[in-house]
Amino acid sequence: MDFFAPPVEKLIEEFARLPGIGQKTAQRLAFYVLDLPKEDAERFADAIRDAKAKTFTCKRCQNLTDTETCPICADQARDQKTICVVTDPRDVIAFERTREYKGLYHVLHGTLSPMNHIGPDDIRIRELVQRVADEETEEVILATNPDTEGEATAMYISRLLQPFGIKITRLGYGMPVGGHLEMVDEVTLLRALEGRREL
Amino acid sequence: MDFFAPPVEKLIEEFARLPGIGQKTAQRLAFYVLDLPKEDAERFADAIRDAKAKTFTCKRCQNLTDTETCPICADQARDQKTICVVTDPRDVIAFERTREYKGLYHVLHGTLSPMNHIGPDDIRIRELVQRVADEETEEVILATNPDTEGEATAMYISRLLQPFGIKITRLGYGMPVGGHLEMVDEVTLLRALEGRREL
Repeated sequence: MDFFAPPVEKLIEEFARLPGIGQKTAQRLAFYVLDLPKEDAERFADAIRDAKAKTFTCKRCQNLTDTETCPICADQARDQKTICVVTDPRDVIAFERTREYKGLYHVLHGTLSPMNHIGPDDIRIRELVQRVADEETEEVILATNPDTEGEATAMYISRLLQPFGIKITRLGYGMPVGGHLEMVDEVTLLRALEGRREL
Repeated sequence: MDFFAPPVEKLIEEFARLPGIGQKTAQRLAFYVLDLPKEDAERFADAIRDAKAKTFTCKRCQNLTDTETCPICADQARDQKTICVVTDPRDVIAFERTREYKGLYHVLHGTLSPMNHIGPDDIRIRELVQRVADEETEEVILATNPDTEGEATAMYISRLLQPFGIKITRLGYGMPVGGHLEMVDEVTLLRALEGRREL
């Protein structure tokens, strides 16, 4: 005999497919949804459907948007000559939270990763090069993650952009603000030492 | 300005409503769903809708089912005179895994909890009493969780059933006090079943 009624089993399966969600958690979530008022469960189902159906990537910066041009690219008050290249839409949010960066973005939607068979054509590198060729870009900030794959991706893109003769920068390395010296790994500490500034 | 496109924000919100899912995890899950092929995202949305629309509670035992009578109540090979009273549909699964218990169940869908304003009318106690009045029940096993609220619920039900003059038992203490039924392994649960005491 099946353990739960088939529609319940199916919902548990779907939750268990999500990253970081095990079988027990999937059961907990499924039963939570089953306990929701019907309207709430339908609103959840609609949110999944709509997020998929109503979002696409901005033609210019490749960030997720539900308008033809994303609000950041459409904002003429922003510096049109600086592009900050990030891995993921969530990284755009991280920069926006600083309230200091006023340039544009380019979202790669991934990192080069030969181990996982992700090559240059699998992320939005071609679109970035095309953009630099078409727009009057003066600086490209490569803000991929400071790990092996992020570094490799930054190096790869910087070589591709070299011929355009524009300024290409990488985020500064160093101590995380509020971090403790003894908690910082050697490589970070070395970079922080290299990047020291006069007071 | 909104951080993510509205349909994305909405999906993150829905995930963040789930128990034990924080803002960061909700974002991670939402972006995972956005990366799914369209068919997979729709299957997920359908699973939520269907689980809600196609399951109801069995008229007899109150367990979740997608058939008129649940497969356990419909199984004439099972002992029709023993009812195991549990808190949650997941507890039924826990008992079925022992492959030893051959009686029926009654699912309360909750525990008495004055702190959370859950009284006798909010869980399926009335249906249990009606059942014992109508059926030729010989034993009711009170298998609520061995914590304060589960104990109180068992005591409350046992007093209600006293007038019927049937055998009323509580699971034996093979279980760790303060533990949850669904987390208990089969062997422990089997011992607890064997060691059940009359109240």
